[in-house]
Amino acid sequence: MLKELNTRLIYCSVYCFGQHGEHARRQAFDSLLQAAGGLISATGPAEQGQTPVRVGCSIVDMCSGMHATMGVLAALHARSMSGTGQRVDTSMLATTAMLMESPISRHSFGGDKYLPRPDGLAHPAVAPFDGFRTKDGTLYIATSNDSRAHMAMRALGLGELCALPEFATNPARMAHRDELKRRMEAKLATKTTSEWELELIPAGVPCSAINDIAQLKQRHPEVFVTVEHPTAGPSLQAGSPFAFSCADVDYTARAPLLGEHTEDVLMGELGFNREELRQWRRAGFIFAAPEDDDDMSERAARRGFG
Amino acid sequence: MLKELNTRLIYCSVYCFGQHGEHARRQAFDSLLQAAGGLISATGPAEQGQTPVRVGCSIVDMCSGMHATMGVLAALHARSMSGTGQRVDTSMLATTAMLMESPISRHSFGGDKYLPRPDGLAHPAVAPFDGFRTKDGTLYIATSNDSRAHMAMRALGLGELCALPEFATNPARMAHRDELKRRMEAKLATKTTSEWELELIPAGVPCSAINDIAQLKQRHPEVFVTVEHPTAGPSLQAGSPFAFSCADVDYTARAPLLGEHTEDVLMGELGFNREELRQWRRAGFIFAAPEDDDDMSERAARRGFG
Repeated sequence: MLKELNTRLIYCSVYCFGQHGEHARRQAFDSLLQAAGGLISATGPAEQGQTPVRVGCSIVDMCSGMHATMGVLAALHARSMSGTGQRVDTSMLATTAMLMESPISRHSFGGDKYLPRPDGLAHPAVAPFDGFRTKDGTLYIATSNDSRAHMAMRALGLGELCALPEFATNPARMAHRDELKRRMEAKLATKTTSEWELELIPAGVPCSAINDIAQLKQRHPEVFVTVEHPTAGPSLQAGSPFAFSCADVDYTARAPLLGEHTEDVLMGELGFNREELRQWRRAGFIFAAPEDDDDMSERAARRGFG
Repeated sequence: MLKELNTRLIYCSVYCFGQHGEHARRQAFDSLLQAAGGLISATGPAEQGQTPVRVGCSIVDMCSGMHATMGVLAALHARSMSGTGQRVDTSMLATTAMLMESPISRHSFGGDKYLPRPDGLAHPAVAPFDGFRTKDGTLYIATSNDSRAHMAMRALGLGELCALPEFATNPARMAHRDELKRRMEAKLATKTTSEWELELIPAGVPCSAINDIAQLKQRHPEVFVTVEHPTAGPSLQAGSPFAFSCADVDYTARAPLLGEHTEDVLMGELGFNREELRQWRRAGFIFAAPEDDDDMSERAARRGFG
C-alpha cells in the first residue's frame, strides 16, 4: 500500500529562483521577483528619470501558485493514463519571465539596444491606447487596429481625423500620439467618465473607467463572494475565475485556524496515533487545535477518523 | 462515435466580463480589464495627484489563459473519474479580481473607507519593504517580520536602530518609514547595487536589483529558451515555468504560420474532403497554406491523412 502510494504520489515544489544552480538557496518575496524578473523595469510613469513602481498586488505569488496548480493538474492527467505520479518543479523567477512574454519578444525582435521601459498608462506600440482625461477623471480607451481606432475617433466626433495622414494608420498615430491625445482630450473634457462609458461602450468602443476596489464592488458585484470565518468574521473575497457546467464551486472551505487540520491529516490520513501527536505537541513540533487529548480524540472520532 | 465524442468533449470559453449579465457583450483588452478590475487603481507613484499606471505586461491576458488552462485540466481530471466532459467558463474580469485578493482583503477588513492606493515601490503594510537608492541605482529590500527587519538593519551597519522604539516593531517602522528609509539610504549610497547584492544576499537579506530585460537575460539565462521560426527567425522566449520529472518540455512547437494547420485539422481530424476545402478557400472562409490542390492533398498524404 505504501509502495502504491509512493508510485502514485504527485508532489510539487515552488522555489524562488529554481531549485538548482547558484541561486537555489536565495530567498525572495513577490516584490523582489517583480524586481529581479524585469516586471518593475517595465511598470511606472513614462517620464524620464521617474522611479518605476511595483505592481499593486502580489502578482508573482498568485501566478506561481497558478503554475503549481497547472503543473499538478497536468501530472494528474498524465497519471490517469500512466498510473504513476511524478515530481513537479516550479520557479517563481521563471513564472515572472513567463509573464514578461511581450516585453521579452519586443526586446528580442527590437534588437539588444531596445529595452522595454515604463510607459505610464499607454501601450508601447498602439495608439490610441491610453488613459485620457475627462471632465472628472480618466477614461481608458484601447484600440487594436485602424478600423477600431477610426471607430473610436468617429464616436468622439473626430471623424475628420481618420483621413489625415497623421492619424490614418497606427505607425502614423504612434508618431503623432501626443497630438492625437490632445485632440481626444479636448472632446473628452466635455463629459464625465461615466457619461462617456454610457455613450461609448454601446457604440462598440473598448473603454473603461479606472475603478478602485469600491467602484469594482459596486459595478461588478458578480465577481465577489462573502466568506464567513469563525474568528475574522465575514470577508469580501474574489469569486472563482471559472465555472464548471458539471460542478458548483464551493466557497465554504474558508481559511483554516492555526492547527485546525493537524489531527485530521496526521491521525486520519497518515495513521499516526494520539500518543505521538501528544508528544509532538508538547515538544512544540505541531500546533494541534484542542488543548487536551480527550478533545483531540473526540473530534477525530466525530469526523470518522477515530 | 459522434455521441461519444460529444459526451467526452471538454470546451472552454473566455469572456471579457463573463458570458452572462449586462456586460456579457462588452469588448475589452488586457489594459481595460486592468482598469475596470481595480489593478491600475493600486499601481503607480505614491505621491498624491500622480496618475496611476498600467502593469507593464499583458498580465490579465496571461492569467486568463492560465485560468482557462487550469479549468480545462480540472475538467480532464474530473473526466478521468466520471467519463464525461463538460463546459468550462472563465471571465477575464473575475481573473483580475482574483489577482486583487490582497487589496480586496485590505479593503474588506480595513473598512469601506479604506481604499488601496498606489504606493510606488513600497509595500502598503510592511517596512523596510521598498526600493532604496544606492551609489548607482536602486536596490529592492524586502522584509517580512521583526527578526528579518533587524537582520537587514544590522547587515547595513544600522544595528543600533533595532533597540529604538521607532524601529523595533513593524507598526513603529511603518510610522517612521521615511526616517528609516533616509537612514538606510545614507548607508546604501556608499556602494553600488551590485556590490550590495554580493554582500547582502549571502547574509540572508532578501534583496534584488531592479533588472531590465537585458540584465535578466544576462543574470538568469536559465529562464530563457531560443525558439526557431521559419519566417521570424530565432527569438528569445521565456522557458517553461514548470519541469516534470517524467516528461521533457517540448519547445519545438513554434507559433504556426497563418493557415499552417488548417488542412490537418479539417481534413485529417474532422474528415472534410479536398473539394470542400477548395471551395472554402476560394470563398475566403479559410486560409489554407498550399496554393494548389495537388500540393494540399500531397501534404496531407505525407502526414498520413490522405
